[in-house]
Amino acid sequence: MLSFENDYSEGAHEKILQRLAETNRVQQPGYGEDAYSRSAKEKIRAACRDPEADVFFLSGGTQANLTVLSALLGTTEGVLAADTGHVSVHEAGAIEGTAHKVLTLPHRAGRLDAGDLEAWLKAFYGDPTCDHMVQPGAVYISHPTEFGTLYSRGQLEDLRRVCSAYHLPLFLDGARLGYGLMSRNTDVTLPDIARLTDVFYIGGTKVGALCGEAVVFPRHGAPRHFFTHVKQHGALTAKGRLLGVQFDTLFTDDLYFSISRHAIEMAELLKAGFAARGYRFYLDSPTNQQFVVLPLAEMARLRERVRFSYWCPYDAEHAVVRFATSWATTEENIAELMEALDAR
Amino acid sequence: MLSFENDYSEGAHEKILQRLAETNRVQQPGYGEDAYSRSAKEKIRAACRDPEADVFFLSGGTQANLTVLSALLGTTEGVLAADTGHVSVHEAGAIEGTAHKVLTLPHRAGRLDAGDLEAWLKAFYGDPTCDHMVQPGAVYISHPTEFGTLYSRGQLEDLRRVCSAYHLPLFLDGARLGYGLMSRNTDVTLPDIARLTDVFYIGGTKVGALCGEAVVFPRHGAPRHFFTHVKQHGALTAKGRLLGVQFDTLFTDDLYFSISRHAIEMAELLKAGFAARGYRFYLDSPTNQQFVVLPLAEMARLRERVRFSYWCPYDAEHAVVRFATSWATTEENIAELMEALDAR
Amino acid sequence: MLSFENDYSEGAHEKILQRLAETNRVQQPGYGEDAYSRSAKEKIRAACRDPEADVFFLSGGTQANLTVLSALLGTTEGVLAADTGHVSVHEAGAIEGTAHKVLTLPHRAGRLDAGDLEAWLKAFYGDPTCDHMVQPGAVYISHPTEFGTLYSRGQLEDLRRVCSAYHLPLFLDGARLGYGLMSRNTDVTLPDIARLTDVFYIGGTKVGALCGEAVVFPRHGAPRHFFTHVKQHGALTAKGRLLGVQFDTLFTDDLYFSISRHAIEMAELLKAGFAARGYRFYLDSPTNQQFVVLPLAEMARLRERVRFSYWCPYDAEHAVVRFATSWATTEENIAELMEALDAR
Amino acid sequence: MLSFENDYSEGAHEKILQRLAETNRVQQPGYGEDAYSRSAKEKIRAACRDPEADVFFLSGGTQANLTVLSALLGTTEGVLAADTGHVSVHEAGAIEGTAHKVLTLPHRAGRLDAGDLEAWLKAFYGDPTCDHMVQPGAVYISHPTEFGTLYSRGQLEDLRRVCSAYHLPLFLDGARLGYGLMSRNTDVTLPDIARLTDVFYIGGTKVGALCGEAVVFPRHGAPRHFFTHVKQHGALTAKGRLLGVQFDTLFTDDLYFSISRHAIEMAELLKAGFAARGYRFYLDSPTNQQFVVLPLAEMARLRERVRFSYWCPYDAEHAVVRFATSWATTEENIAELMEALDAR
Repeated sequence: MLSFENDYSEGAHEKILQRLAETNRVQQPGYGEDAYSRSAKEKIRAACRDPEADVFFLSGGTQANLTVLSALLGTTEGVLAADTGHVSVHEAGAIEGTAHKVLTLPHRAGRLDAGDLEAWLKAFYGDPTCDHMVQPGAVYISHPTEFGTLYSRGQLEDLRRVCSAYHLPLFLDGARLGYGLMSRNTDVTLPDIARLTDVFYIGGTKVGALCGEAVVFPRHGAPRHFFTHVKQHGALTAKGRLLGVQFDTLFTDDLYFSISRHAIEMAELLKAGFAARGYRFYLDSPTNQQFVVLPLAEMARLRERVRFSYWCPYDAEHAVVRFATSWATTEENIAELMEALDAR
Repeated sequence: MLSFENDYSEGAHEKILQRLAETNRVQQPGYGEDAYSRSAKEKIRAACRDPEADVFFLSGGTQANLTVLSALLGTTEGVLAADTGHVSVHEAGAIEGTAHKVLTLPHRAGRLDAGDLEAWLKAFYGDPTCDHMVQPGAVYISHPTEFGTLYSRGQLEDLRRVCSAYHLPLFLDGARLGYGLMSRNTDVTLPDIARLTDVFYIGGTKVGALCGEAVVFPRHGAPRHFFTHVKQHGALTAKGRLLGVQFDTLFTDDLYFSISRHAIEMAELLKAGFAARGYRFYLDSPTNQQFVVLPLAEMARLRERVRFSYWCPYDAEHAVVRFATSWATTEENIAELMEALDAR
Repeated sequence: MLSFENDYSEGAHEKILQRLAETNRVQQPGYGEDAYSRSAKEKIRAACRDPEADVFFLSGGTQANLTVLSALLGTTEGVLAADTGHVSVHEAGAIEGTAHKVLTLPHRAGRLDAGDLEAWLKAFYGDPTCDHMVQPGAVYISHPTEFGTLYSRGQLEDLRRVCSAYHLPLFLDGARLGYGLMSRNTDVTLPDIARLTDVFYIGGTKVGALCGEAVVFPRHGAPRHFFTHVKQHGALTAKGRLLGVQFDTLFTDDLYFSISRHAIEMAELLKAGFAARGYRFYLDSPTNQQFVVLPLAEMARLRERVRFSYWCPYDAEHAVVRFATSWATTEENIAELMEALDAR
Repeated sequence: MLSFENDYSEGAHEKILQRLAETNRVQQPGYGEDAYSRSAKEKIRAACRDPEADVFFLSGGTQANLTVLSALLGTTEGVLAADTGHVSVHEAGAIEGTAHKVLTLPHRAGRLDAGDLEAWLKAFYGDPTCDHMVQPGAVYISHPTEFGTLYSRGQLEDLRRVCSAYHLPLFLDGARLGYGLMSRNTDVTLPDIARLTDVFYIGGTKVGALCGEAVVFPRHGAPRHFFTHVKQHGALTAKGRLLGVQFDTLFTDDLYFSISRHAIEMAELLKAGFAARGYRFYLDSPTNQQFVVLPLAEMARLRERVRFSYWCPYDAEHAVVRFATSWATTEENIAELMEALDAR
């Protein structure tokens, strides 16, 4: 059945498979010491315009989040996030599993607002009992957010300013980073992100790879013993070449960006198709996730032909559902979806 | 440079790559709900002769160890292991990172001895202050062990008996399980392991896969919420198909076993080659890891042409080094190694 | 300076000090095996009308909360609590420090509502992605609550019903239990609590003891290895006699109840005094904590003569402050406070 | 029955009880902000000759160990200790419970040897796979040790030198510190300990207090947020006055030292008594714990009249048992013990 359920329904971009096959019998050392990982790191540093960035390849997003955050946070510290943040809701307590609280603030269309953050921090440090509470130790955002929305460069700069004022590292979860960077409605570049955050990751799993996320600590910023920390959390891949080859391919000839741009184009087609048919959107997402308000009966009928994600109730007669495009979505897929819509 | 450094120096068996390519564009649900994972689980259940086994695919060995053990152990419990056990030494405190102690007993050629275990348990429960100490909560063994040695079926039955008497689950780390099962010097089969342990894993990373280990809880024995537990530890792969396709291929037409047997044959060639040249072995390993005693000068010279692992000092003039064969080793590799040896 | 800041500003009830002195040189075994602890446990079992209750003495409230909850919760489970719950806010991440999330629901005058709880649980298990989230593993309430409010017996029975339906243990934090039980506005007795909860503690620190809380698991309900668990968390007192003597004294001749009743009487005097002077209360508390709305200027002036706790802002010109009475409060203290009020 | 089982069989020194009674109704703030705690801290700083020492009062030894070590250690770090160390054996996995490994070295009469430590560290950092292992993050010693033995000043200086060379904080567990400082066979003073360690604690529980240990970080060395860390681990006493009054009394007129000296004198009497009767000692302890080799039959007979601790087997016919004196032991107690011995 046709699926718009998520952006990890297919395998990997064919160039990755091809490169895996070509390099398959070349003997390489393990644990990220292979030539492909070294090459991929260089290319990522170049794309970030930060020749001193520390780069690590981890095999998945939850791992990246829990490994990075538990390395950043002191024992009494928690991470500040929007209440819709992935680390707060959908990671089965991965952060708490490393003994750290997720401190939540109300989201603004999925975003953490710099003004809200500053107000929270001011109130926290103004409370005479604050040393009986979890200390803020890092700030987590995702870009795109859970709602497919984006931060503007100005918003990131505002967050950076607040984080710097309070000596808090800023961590950007880029599980879908490509789709954010290639949106038509963004002024944020990869070098901006490297400049404005203390650590972020470039998502591979949802952007054309079989698996893998590239964790980047700009300006030689990796915490002490981070390699050992990755190992301890089971996030170190013995055959590091698997991640190295993939990111080396993604960052050759701008493949990461071109396939992300394709997903955006497919999302625009999809959006236009829904709009032309009079559907409302839950919010205006400029990336590959589109949130559509569907009448309940229609949702049920559409389910018979297409897979998509139920998101949340809208009102007594409607629900919000999510359609995700990806590097693998084709124009035929969109046409087929529209046909299914029209078939009612 | 030619490498016998480990059994994860190459990519994956070509059949796996081919199958990944063939299935690449087939849309599948995530998180292990894909058709390939379901099929692979069925094949593994059949190979184990346990139709009720719970099977989970995790992306690496340290992850498998920490995820399984932290699910088995109560808050006051630790795991009993040989002092050479991988969980005790080489996983950067992964088990302690989940708040559990590794309780060690002296190894016997890498093995945990059932008699030693029983004596330890008897002494522990005989100590009136034992409730001030970490409680034994599980027993960890690896098969093959860190030294490439194997348990006999009788030895596993003895461990089983002690574990049952003390109500301790028995966990077998099978990172190199294929190489153990296909050794010529073993009476242990995969169904034996499923029958005698409470949980074990079938290593993929070191036996022909790009990544992945199949964790098996025989007799519907998975702990409650194990899926969520896997997620929490970052060990759940979004594109579960990556692991599903690989294990489905490995357990089709006995590929897992035939490539393991090949590695054993290569180890036998290697062993015979060293023996013919008068080298001593540190111990008698019937699997793919061979531990050779080398004069220091010769070790240095050989290093210029071949990669292998330094293991430990032997005496003032010799060291123990490890040569590992794998599914990918060729007869030409062995010949080249022998040539390098003779070139002194 | 006169203080109504909290209920732990003085030492201990004099009968406790006297009994500590009388028994001081009697040699006793450690770790709770002393005769006084054994006697105190019997008296507590009798007061609870549960001859099979397991009783443990711990030295403080945060310890009791973290030790009990981490023993109850599985690795993927969190505890449900009101968002004002002490475990959520004021314990510096003690629960998260044991790797468990605190899942919060909006409070109702400090209480967790059984209807809200049931709705949350229904929604949780109705969510198809619920196995990607922290599982509910226990329910935490405090009685009195952070706002001094109480559950009625009916409300506790409702919570019990929901907890039983969802197989969740119900844990009642009784740091101020005496003040709740001796309120004039309650139909809840100690045997009710023993009957309706799975574990609770009888607070000593805030109710006349130097330190110590009595954790009670009704119906032989202590988790396996709980003694070792207490030890592991540093919550086991070497000189268990210190806690034993105190609780033995508190549960002799109903001392715990009579001193709690006294605190309630003092709170009533205080309340009447404020009411007579036209002050508003933030909410109607039937226990020893009274929340008064004070004009900011008056708050500042009163601070010069009396200590009390700032609670939260009320409006631009008022704040909510807390006055706590205790077993040690005297009528003279109340008179002096009223005098200070009138001195404006 | 007469007991030499341990040094916490009685309550507290009478001066402490008296001072608790005198100050009982004086209202004080909680959490260590009381006047008695402030005064006690000043006196401890003076006794340590370190006016800048950070001092915290915790309620017990296991708590002190786990709270200090988990504050010192990074996520990938473990603590080095003698294999007989209390943290390694008798604290129910308290350290591992905070997710840190205890790395053990063979003890030398209970001591950790600086040469052994240096050799271990050299070997560790010489191992090319050391970043796959738990990193050494702190060194733990106890003084007196589990065997009642002491470090000389030279031995402490040697440990200090090794720790400094490897940037490892040195933590001294002083649960019985008074008995060590007042031994006749020591050249180590309290200022020496403050000078040579990074953190240590002055044991109260075993040296005349009802409960409590004073954790000292010389030279303003407390880790960031240590107060919050103490709170998080449930180690913060609401009625901090209880600990403040006790340590203030112990450090007034050298009470801590004079009662410790008394225990040593009693140990000398006991030792002389055993020696005069021809008993052997397991080792030569210069402090309040004496380890005597007893024939098994005699051990059983003596048990009927006196309590003492079984330590370990000696040979087929003898066992090692421990007799502990304390601040509370009287000459009459020793005489009665000798009488019991002679009564065979």
